[in-house]
Amino acid sequence: LLSDKQCDSLDVVLVSPRNPLNIGAAARAMANFGFRHLAVVAPFAPTWHEARSAVGASEILQDAKEFAALGQAVAPSTLVVGTGTLTYRKPEQRVVTLPELPSLVAHEMERGGRVAMVFGPEKHGLTREDLSYCQLLVEIPTDARQPSMNLGQAVAVCLYELATHASGTGSCPATPAPHPAVPSGRLDLLAEVIEEAMQAAGYSPRTMQSANRHDLRLLLRRLALTEHDSRRVLGIFRRILWRLKKQRKTPQF
Amino acid sequence: LLSDKQCDSLDVVLVSPRNPLNIGAAARAMANFGFRHLAVVAPFAPTWHEARSAVGASEILQDAKEFAALGQAVAPSTLVVGTGTLTYRKPEQRVVTLPELPSLVAHEMERGGRVAMVFGPEKHGLTREDLSYCQLLVEIPTDARQPSMNLGQAVAVCLYELATHASGTGSCPATPAPHPAVPSGRLDLLAEVIEEAMQAAGYSPRTMQSANRHDLRLLLRRLALTEHDSRRVLGIFRRILWRLKKQRKTPQF
Repeated sequence: LLSDKQCDSLDVVLVSPRNPLNIGAAARAMANFGFRHLAVVAPFAPTWHEARSAVGASEILQDAKEFAALGQAVAPSTLVVGTGTLTYRKPEQRVVTLPELPSLVAHEMERGGRVAMVFGPEKHGLTREDLSYCQLLVEIPTDARQPSMNLGQAVAVCLYELATHASGTGSCPATPAPHPAVPSGRLDLLAEVIEEAMQAAGYSPRTMQSANRHDLRLLLRRLALTEHDSRRVLGIFRRILWRLKKQRKTPQF
Repeated sequence: LLSDKQCDSLDVVLVSPRNPLNIGAAARAMANFGFRHLAVVAPFAPTWHEARSAVGASEILQDAKEFAALGQAVAPSTLVVGTGTLTYRKPEQRVVTLPELPSLVAHEMERGGRVAMVFGPEKHGLTREDLSYCQLLVEIPTDARQPSMNLGQAVAVCLYELATHASGTGSCPATPAPHPAVPSGRLDLLAEVIEEAMQAAGYSPRTMQSANRHDLRLLLRRLALTEHDSRRVLGIFRRILWRLKKQRKTPQF
């Protein structure tokens, strides 16, 4: 299994879970494989209350953090991994199968990053908006006749794969990755400033703003910016924005 | 994933499950990974009825076979694999971790064998008696602080590992294993005849019979007899038994 330090750098994020038994099952699987950090996004209040107050509810449930939006839950994460079946959608991100995930997660942990495993609601899974926060989608290989897994079982299978196969990579220090990764929250800040600059520059009509925001979020996650890059880009756009706003105030002769 | 033919040569066996939701979850995981054959041993009747009549109960549940004893459920199997945590017991069989299991199962399927994955009741797992029918115990690597997995999640994790890692071995025909394996039921028949012979020969006092039966069952599963071997040994002991009984009837002068 992974070391306690490795387990501490992984968050399990449940988006709008509906069934208290599934929340409990997810927490139990986390305990089985040594993970401790659970975040719940916009839970259905009675469900969340029931899961937390269940007899024998674990420390993991007691300590779980609640967030209103996925962006907040994954703000500290440098690698956000979405889960689910891709039968009904065409993803815009890189897709890997679950057996391919451990080496990517191990690499992220080695460079001091923080990983979020994001699971969608039971009925329909993660939305396109949810997925736009993910650098990577992972697909559990399932039978085409019954591709959709139960939430608690999907969490168990993913954590089992990471716990048993992401550890042995310490012997391969060939890729030290000197640049720390950029947390999701920093990318959100960057996206905000860029968007403001785009608007100030009159980049596109108001009706396109939502689509632009979506594409920008995906773009920033594809770029693999370092911490240093992200600060520089932020500085550039802040300067541009300042200039654009100043121009607007100055009457044009 | 495995081919339909490979999936058809694997049985999932639940021993005395208590929670209908767990039975449903096991069946769902089977469908997710392409397996179809479910056997239930000595189920708690209301539980089994509830699981089978649940809304959306799958074909797998409808077609599941019910047995009074584990020996009957695994009678056609040539490789019987017990599951569970070994924290509280000292196993008498070979133990492998789950990531080591796929190659063993693939090998058994290649030689035309039939595999049973046996899961115990939620509370205490498989008994020593149950385990005596198993050639092999598999341990899911879990955190020592919370080693015990939920039944439905344990089934999902085991089937995931087999489905994703037991397939790729077709490229390695170095071990054709010309001898078909011996089904568990044949070993039971052999054990019965040998036991009868032991008793007829006055091998040990009556108080030792139960312990002898247990040891004999384990011994026969360790021997890796071929089908041909088992027939020969059965023949030998049947002859011995016949002779012993005849002797007894003949008054000794």
